[in-house]
Amino acid sequence: MRLVVVGGVAGGMSAAARARRLDEHAEIIVLERGEHPSFANCGLPYYVGGEIRQESKLLVQTPESLRAALDLDVRVRHDVTAVDPHARTLTATTPDGEITLGYDALVLAPGAAAVVPPIPGLADSLASGVVKTLRTVGDAIAMRAALPQARRAVVLGAGFIGLEAAEALRLQGLEVDVVELAEHVLPPLEREMASLVTDELVRLGISVHDGVAATALEDAAGEAAVEVVLDDGARLPADLVVLSVGVRPDTAPFEAAGVECERGAIVVDSRGRTNVPGIWAVGDATVSEDAVTGARRPVALAGPANRGGRLVADDILAPERARPMPRPVGTAIVRVGELTAAMTGANRAALESAGIAFETLHLHPGSHAGYFPGAEQIHLLVHLGTGGEHEGRLLGAQAVGADGVDKRIDVLATAIRHEAMAADLMDLDLAYAPPYGSAKDPVNLAGMMADNLAEGSLAVWQARDLDAVRGASLILDVRSPGEFASGHIPGALNVPHTQLRERMSEVRAAAAGRPVRVHCASGMRSYLAHRLLVAEGFDSANLSGGILTLEAWLGREAAEVLVTPEAAVPEAVR
Amino acid sequence: MRLVVVGGVAGGMSAAARARRLDEHAEIIVLERGEHPSFANCGLPYYVGGEIRQESKLLVQTPESLRAALDLDVRVRHDVTAVDPHARTLTATTPDGEITLGYDALVLAPGAAAVVPPIPGLADSLASGVVKTLRTVGDAIAMRAALPQARRAVVLGAGFIGLEAAEALRLQGLEVDVVELAEHVLPPLEREMASLVTDELVRLGISVHDGVAATALEDAAGEAAVEVVLDDGARLPADLVVLSVGVRPDTAPFEAAGVECERGAIVVDSRGRTNVPGIWAVGDATVSEDAVTGARRPVALAGPANRGGRLVADDILAPERARPMPRPVGTAIVRVGELTAAMTGANRAALESAGIAFETLHLHPGSHAGYFPGAEQIHLLVHLGTGGEHEGRLLGAQAVGADGVDKRIDVLATAIRHEAMAADLMDLDLAYAPPYGSAKDPVNLAGMMADNLAEGSLAVWQARDLDAVRGASLILDVRSPGEFASGHIPGALNVPHTQLRERMSEVRAAAAGRPVRVHCASGMRSYLAHRLLVAEGFDSANLSGGILTLEAWLGREAAEVLVTPEAAVPEAVR
Repeated sequence: MRLVVVGGVAGGMSAAARARRLDEHAEIIVLERGEHPSFANCGLPYYVGGEIRQESKLLVQTPESLRAALDLDVRVRHDVTAVDPHARTLTATTPDGEITLGYDALVLAPGAAAVVPPIPGLADSLASGVVKTLRTVGDAIAMRAALPQARRAVVLGAGFIGLEAAEALRLQGLEVDVVELAEHVLPPLEREMASLVTDELVRLGISVHDGVAATALEDAAGEAAVEVVLDDGARLPADLVVLSVGVRPDTAPFEAAGVECERGAIVVDSRGRTNVPGIWAVGDATVSEDAVTGARRPVALAGPANRGGRLVADDILAPERARPMPRPVGTAIVRVGELTAAMTGANRAALESAGIAFETLHLHPGSHAGYFPGAEQIHLLVHLGTGGEHEGRLLGAQAVGADGVDKRIDVLATAIRHEAMAADLMDLDLAYAPPYGSAKDPVNLAGMMADNLAEGSLAVWQARDLDAVRGASLILDVRSPGEFASGHIPGALNVPHTQLRERMSEVRAAAAGRPVRVHCASGMRSYLAHRLLVAEGFDSANLSGGILTLEAWLGREAAEVLVTPEAAVPEAVR
Repeated sequence: MRLVVVGGVAGGMSAAARARRLDEHAEIIVLERGEHPSFANCGLPYYVGGEIRQESKLLVQTPESLRAALDLDVRVRHDVTAVDPHARTLTATTPDGEITLGYDALVLAPGAAAVVPPIPGLADSLASGVVKTLRTVGDAIAMRAALPQARRAVVLGAGFIGLEAAEALRLQGLEVDVVELAEHVLPPLEREMASLVTDELVRLGISVHDGVAATALEDAAGEAAVEVVLDDGARLPADLVVLSVGVRPDTAPFEAAGVECERGAIVVDSRGRTNVPGIWAVGDATVSEDAVTGARRPVALAGPANRGGRLVADDILAPERARPMPRPVGTAIVRVGELTAAMTGANRAALESAGIAFETLHLHPGSHAGYFPGAEQIHLLVHLGTGGEHEGRLLGAQAVGADGVDKRIDVLATAIRHEAMAADLMDLDLAYAPPYGSAKDPVNLAGMMADNLAEGSLAVWQARDLDAVRGASLILDVRSPGEFASGHIPGALNVPHTQLRERMSEVRAAAAGRPVRVHCASGMRSYLAHRLLVAEGFDSANLSGGILTLEAWLGREAAEVLVTPEAAVPEAVR
């Protein structure tokens, strides 16, 4: 039995290592195109930024250590160029010329390569080394080596790796511009979450250019190596440009061999089998079906790749007891400065594109009990289904904050994996002591809000509906007068929630038959007000996430839309 | 409609607040025996220790704030002494004498009181104030006020609150002894987890007396207020004794009124209803059915009480849409010095007493990627079912470590709530970036080990079986020679896992037909060795958790059992 694995690192090395544990006598050969069969690819930005100091930390295993521990035959700088599935052979270019190798089972784990968009000047700058990617240990070493000569960097693409790279370069003292074609940084995040990340980037001293395209890389007028030209007219001088606009599956030789692909990504069944007998595939180069929406797409995440490698080895060597490959939930996380931003499950765009009806609930609880020092606010949202088979289901969640974000997203990811109803989140027995959480954990609170929504005691309106709401409804702001004065929605009536019972007639007069759309800072006090308004017969709804979410949704526009302190306070008392 | 709630704080206040949100017009009266209707009971030890500085932080709500926000009629220093369920009235002693109050619905949330064991001298010292409990804001203020006059403290009971109190007093500069009747501190934790906590207590300068009983409190010979006499002969002088040996439900007047109780705790159905029409109960005073074992017991935890209060209000005011009360999973957590210790689901004792067959898997992964700075080791165990309806089920988990413990226990608690199989843990898509986790998160690893066990590629032996194993098997230690020299099991053969293929004949000769019981430091390398041994035809099993778990299991005995450096290194080279 000879098993050949194409591609090391996450999925490939996991498959090879698991195969050895299942079969001591199999011949297991791993062909890796690069220099390193097993490296910490997610650590590369932190090596550039200097938090990981030694290059050796990035090298998880070497061919020698893999030979010693697992009797694996790992061959680096072996680039597979062709497969003959009928003869069960493959061809690879190697430092010693081309070789042909037979296999009984073949695992394709080629990963994905950086997308190089057709921007004039980009290819040349890539060749000259001014533009760099960050996919391999070699890339990271080259980028770190370029730092002493660089003063300004432009990062093209504000996805997870782009932001990690931007922060790393800033940490090394460079002036950094980030350019993102999409409306906001971290495009998979919702707008009201991403704007918190943008604020943090700005605080770190990074310039954010979102919703703009880079149209050319041109010779710089001054000392810089190049200028990145944007379609809003800006010209960003740079000594170093990081290209991080996305990845594409690296599958050309396999597609040519008859392996079925979908937009370049290998199609596999729930056991990792391709359409070609004897060939399996795993990792970034494969198409997966999303656990929530069922949509098919490549998922370039280390976790599913690592775990998928194991399942593929099981199916090859012990198919009778192999588990099916789980559909990815798509959990992702990134540290940006002092913040953590994370998401799991489907986002608004994915739900809309899948035609799934949903509602979004926002909350801003503390990371632990408010009476214990050090609690940080978590900005959390959950999407839940509002119709059909998805009615009440937890579909996705996102969070941003300085503490406790990873924990809540992991709990929510676990709930989504188990197809939980959103209201079921209130029943979770999460660990509570003052340094860790609250008796009603943020996740429990989200469940209670979902339960309120399901049983009808809560109705919400969303920040994105502000314009429509302003025209048709009375906006009732139940915060304190001091909070109201610090910034409020124009035309809003201010009645603190503790005075609402006594001042209901004021509300009735101001509403003049219109619906009442109530809010406070976060949505808690206004929920009490909402219950009272409903009891008084009003058509009422509560702003999801309150003015905190509204401000985050508006982002830079908040200063124009809201009545801010300067406008609110008479000049004489300023 | 008049709703009367007996007892504020967690369950009672949650019921009252939810009731108001569901019914603006109900009359809602809360009768609280103490001074404060809503206080941070879990914060009391931290107030004593000075981490929470202001008393005001402990007071979550006041009668005035509850009147203003929720129109609640909250009456403190009202102690309910009798209930007449036929007339639907209750009697209470108040500062203004006895009152009788009618109700339409009654919620009992009396909580639990400190157990006072029949130790000679204890009752007198409680009366004189030398012995204190820590259940109310008044208790915490009194304890903090006693600190300037106190030099030595003895804490009776090393449960969660006992250890929090011990650390608080140590933080305030006192000499602290902790006395625990059970075999080890934090009795709900397994021995191999609790011993890590004991080490941390010792590091904090706290003296631990476990497996001993306090037999008397006597007049002190020296300056101390009292001496605590232990049954091992020790006499512990103390200026302050904290009594924290447990709680009992505070239900006498209700049992007298015909409310069914089990060993003093109120029996409720899944809607929080007692056997008496018109009376519900919630919180520490009620009996719950354990989610894993089905055993019935009171669960004195803030989370279930808070959330149960809501469900009881739902059943009273909107029974048609009320959710059932979830069976508690029993998640608990405590900070001890720089460590966190946490548990969820059933422990060994609960599983044994329920007659559920199980196996335990131990692992010691990093809190995040090892190549990123700051990773801390997590000591994690999971119990999984090995027969009948529990076959493969995740039954419980415990963890101790300096970082990331709360997150993993919360994920595992979520999985237990969803009745996950242990092997399913490998399929969880948990958030991975280097500062937060690993591509194979500790929880995923536990799932893979469970899968290995289920499919037969892993067989384990346990630290507690050491004596039996030593007699009957070859113990094979596959760590490096340096690790072996630093401490090993007497009689073990040392063959590093990377040399095992070449040195198999040595193993065969040493085994001489006996089974091989293999281990390394944590169980990872020895799993590879185990696979190899099985392929070579040996009866092999891998020590769960490796020598790290063995040492923790042995605790203070480790120095006697293991061959330690002094014994291993010849005197000449010492």
